[in-house]
Amino acid sequence: MSFERVAIIGLGLLGGSIGLAVQDYLPGVATTGYDADPATRARARELGLAGTISDTAAEAVSQSDLVIFCVPVGAMAAAAAEVAGSLRPDALVSDVGSSKESVAKALSDALPGAAIIPAHPVAGTEHSGPDAGFASLFRNRWCIITPPEGADPAKVKALSEFWTALGANVELMTAQHHDLVLAVTSHLPHLIAYTIVGTASDLEGVTQGEVIKYSAGGFRDFTRIAASDPTMWRDVFLTNKDAVLEMLQRFSEDLTALQRAIRVGDGDQLFDHFTRTRAIRRSIIELGQDDARPDFGRSDHGGTEP
Amino acid sequence: MSFERVAIIGLGLLGGSIGLAVQDYLPGVATTGYDADPATRARARELGLAGTISDTAAEAVSQSDLVIFCVPVGAMAAAAAEVAGSLRPDALVSDVGSSKESVAKALSDALPGAAIIPAHPVAGTEHSGPDAGFASLFRNRWCIITPPEGADPAKVKALSEFWTALGANVELMTAQHHDLVLAVTSHLPHLIAYTIVGTASDLEGVTQGEVIKYSAGGFRDFTRIAASDPTMWRDVFLTNKDAVLEMLQRFSEDLTALQRAIRVGDGDQLFDHFTRTRAIRRSIIELGQDDARPDFGRSDHGGTEP
Repeated sequence: MSFERVAIIGLGLLGGSIGLAVQDYLPGVATTGYDADPATRARARELGLAGTISDTAAEAVSQSDLVIFCVPVGAMAAAAAEVAGSLRPDALVSDVGSSKESVAKALSDALPGAAIIPAHPVAGTEHSGPDAGFASLFRNRWCIITPPEGADPAKVKALSEFWTALGANVELMTAQHHDLVLAVTSHLPHLIAYTIVGTASDLEGVTQGEVIKYSAGGFRDFTRIAASDPTMWRDVFLTNKDAVLEMLQRFSEDLTALQRAIRVGDGDQLFDHFTRTRAIRRSIIELGQDDARPDFGRSDHGGTEP
Repeated sequence: MSFERVAIIGLGLLGGSIGLAVQDYLPGVATTGYDADPATRARARELGLAGTISDTAAEAVSQSDLVIFCVPVGAMAAAAAEVAGSLRPDALVSDVGSSKESVAKALSDALPGAAIIPAHPVAGTEHSGPDAGFASLFRNRWCIITPPEGADPAKVKALSEFWTALGANVELMTAQHHDLVLAVTSHLPHLIAYTIVGTASDLEGVTQGEVIKYSAGGFRDFTRIAASDPTMWRDVFLTNKDAVLEMLQRFSEDLTALQRAIRVGDGDQLFDHFTRTRAIRRSIIELGQDDARPDFGRSDHGGTEP
């Protein structure tokens, strides 16, 4: 089983990249795109993000055997409601959201009876909108598929093959476990980065000009992920609240311990901690998820992935 | 006035890069290097990090009119004590430490009567040791010089011209202001990165293998600066304690506010904060201190600079 026509609802960085990737890597598969924003639809037509750009979500999905929602996770319920009643009975419904338990619920509530298998391609850049998409975004990145209990194995297989065709490495896990893993590998780092960039911009003793001028001292790296799409990230934190707050609690405890070590001048504790974290960096490079080159191989693909 | 012979005490990333840069960009200037570690001295000879590698610090400085200490800031006092009595009377003493008030005091205590003008080239990578150095490390990076009150203007000018010759943009400020600016642009980001990498490696629900596997979700960027030299960073936090603790306090307050916004579901507060930080990223790119390309132009130079 494979798909004949894919509908992409939401034509930002992820949706646009899927449209371009399907046209490049699955030329036999038709693509239809829709975005709630008329300006984005117009731009998507100019850029050819999909074979057809429909003016309604219902029209976009009506012929499709795979429907992928690529909207912020907080907008999934409304986007799904727009297509209720227009889906092909055999259609598989999926998404690309960064939190999975809440999206699974939003989609199944809005589309009772539909076959729903959520997914999360762990790929992206700090840029957003229809102009940010590119066909190779998913190559050598992970796509996590979270099949609900009782999901049709044939549909899970077809969705896995779809993402593999776009260049992704597919992994299956429960939505709950996905949300825990991403809370630490993606959501907490983004929240920390958003926080420190805000802190640095609110100082009296140091001008914002100085912060920017000397940002190469380390601050710069944080500003990059703190430039990610505000709507997407607001929704991620609100929809993966429990896991994010749990990770945040642990982080705050660890930060307090290092803060105390600095205050009391416990150099050994600092040295031991910094040595341990250095080893983890080595493992990441050995596993090929980063690169010791100055650009950490980012020139090969899309940069930091939300 | 310019320098005829430069002594480099400490042949790690910074000292080795200065030795290579002087040989490339100031071929008329002689270089003598010393490192307390015999293995590092042997490697420095193989790599040609300086024209001469001396077996004692006293011998290295005896003929030099510029002496640059390139050791961890916690080791400055001991390194300076080793050359007391061996300095040329007209020698200028400087350093490359990341905290400046404490280093200025350590050097002047150990070398009473010597002409001392501390400096901090805001340049480096997460790598360390004699093999990590390269001649172009300082090109287009900032070098902050912190002349003490009453410093000889001719010597300040000569030191500025020295760093300009190595490719750096020179800025003058007080040691106290330097320590405040670097606390936010460099020291706090490194402490946060060290913390989150430690937090992520201590989870029960998520394996370290999963953290590494999905690190491209944002976590990866933090591991890079958390791989910086543990000795250097231990000393930075202990010697710039007050400014770091002040910034840490502000960061913790801001983090608590965002944590509360997540807990109570205040999406507007999150959205407003994330929009503001995005604008700061734009300013950094406009000022040329970072780059919107996936590798943020890191391939042009040395990566994240401590």
